Amino acid sequence: MRFARIGAIGEERPALLVDGTYYDLSGVTDDITGGFLSTGGPERARAAFDGGELPELPGAASARVGAPIARPSAVVCIGMNYAAHAAESGSAPPTVPILFLKTPNTVVGPDDVARIPRGSTKTDWEVELGVVIGERASYLDSPADSIRHIAGFVVANDLSEREWQLEISGGQWSKGKSAPGFTPVGPWLVTPDEVDYRDLRLQSRVNGEPRQDSTTADLIFDVDRIVYDLSQYLTLEPGDLVLTGTPEGVALSGRFPYLKAGDVVEIEIDGLGLQRQEFVDA
Amino acid sequence: MRFARIGAIGEERPALLVDGTYYDLSGVTDDITGGFLSTGGPERARAAFDGGELPELPGAASARVGAPIARPSAVVCIGMNYAAHAAESGSAPPTVPILFLKTPNTVVGPDDVARIPRGSTKTDWEVELGVVIGERASYLDSPADSIRHIAGFVVANDLSEREWQLEISGGQWSKGKSAPGFTPVGPWLVTPDEVDYRDLRLQSRVNGEPRQDSTTADLIFDVDRIVYDLSQYLTLEPGDLVLTGTPEGVALSGRFPYLKAGDVVEIEIDGLGLQRQEFVDA
Repeated sequence: MRFARIGAIGEERPALLVDGTYYDLSGVTDDITGGFLSTGGPERARAAFDGGELPELPGAASARVGAPIARPSAVVCIGMNYAAHAAESGSAPPTVPILFLKTPNTVVGPDDVARIPRGSTKTDWEVELGVVIGERASYLDSPADSIRHIAGFVVANDLSEREWQLEISGGQWSKGKSAPGFTPVGPWLVTPDEVDYRDLRLQSRVNGEPRQDSTTADLIFDVDRIVYDLSQYLTLEPGDLVLTGTPEGVALSGRFPYLKAGDVVEIEIDGLGLQRQEFVDA
Repeated sequence: MRFARIGAIGEERPALLVDGTYYDLSGVTDDITGGFLSTGGPERARAAFDGGELPELPGAASARVGAPIARPSAVVCIGMNYAAHAAESGSAPPTVPILFLKTPNTVVGPDDVARIPRGSTKTDWEVELGVVIGERASYLDSPADSIRHIAGFVVANDLSEREWQLEISGGQWSKGKSAPGFTPVGPWLVTPDEVDYRDLRLQSRVNGEPRQDSTTADLIFDVDRIVYDLSQYLTLEPGDLVLTGTPEGVALSGRFPYLKAGDVVEIEIDGLGLQRQEFVDA
């Protein structure tokens, strides 16, 4: 299944996407929340669709697409999780998953206008496979248990301000990761049965030119290991978003210029959809 | 004013503390949330009290005290913000505020049983002045504007696992900051008119023995500077919690043992109240 939230900011309606048509889930749930995901909501949505109970969502084709999950309680990120990206960032591949956090209010829709923060000179893109938690995860016994706690997958852009992240941060990355709108998510939340999350192609483009082009098969710590590992250090809540790291091909490498007003970033992951952000100055 | 949330976990009722008596705020608000704080809730509470409209909260004297704010959207922390603590941690005093995040689900009541996380050998205490945001703060013009965005102050214990924070983290502290229950907050949210937040004595004790004893006058970056500075890098939401850093006297210094099951930690800040946590193994 593909879940989405369609409508103006703050007025998104929950929807199910089937064969290119958005169906209105308002009769099943108020929103795509952690509560919906952890209490059998997806199964109720499927049953309602199979029973012909879901009306089409009027105007969906031309409406704004929101992030496919309502604001998570946490956005948990794994850093340096592709060897080639660690190298382009000047680091050795990590021997343990590196955990950092973004503030949840950075989550916005996949195609919302993106803002270069005030004072920024080094705003950078990062295509990432995002994992949405479906069931609370604490002290999992093994990586094989992780999939039971995963509601689905999303495209995410882990936008980053490199001066703030690395040069005036005292070494803590969150300062460059939490500017307004810095986590475009979506268009869809795709359930695990729909994709092989162990081998998904991820790409980014700036003004139509290729930047990143890799596969999640190259993750140093894979999705199952990440969720298991995180659960030893913190509790993942239903609806939380876990970003799994970005592959090589970002501006930090020195091979490409940083973003400026007027640039258009497209990022996509096979089976999970495409984002397109036009950048303006904040 | 002193706000509190009284009752079992997940069933806390909002309360106003006046002269040692808790008054029930349920008729004024469902909870002490960012929405309550940002829409004139404190003024409505005062008017209701002055009008004699608030009944006493029955059983409050023997009831559990919860965190005085419902779960914030973010817990934003400032690291190494007392020179002597930076020195005991092996660091030079920072030249810019160092920002890191804890997951908001770490927030618990001030006297809740605290858990040594599984596998932890270096669980440590940190008394901190906490700032609760009352009005959204983004791109403030000056530190002098900060106070208008502050709802009040709280005692917080920024519990930390030092091996996870420093030794197996790849340098990112959040891994050792987000274990379940790692942010006891309270007992009260105290409005700015009640305390001089620029000079508050902070203390911690372990099993009755003194550990930390400093004053917020020694902050490298003071409260006004912190809120202003943060607002340049992210948006602070109503109800968010900002932890301002801890003074010297933690176990990381090597002068004291780390916490173990059976230990009792007390932390207090003048005018903001006292916390007491008994530690058990998770």
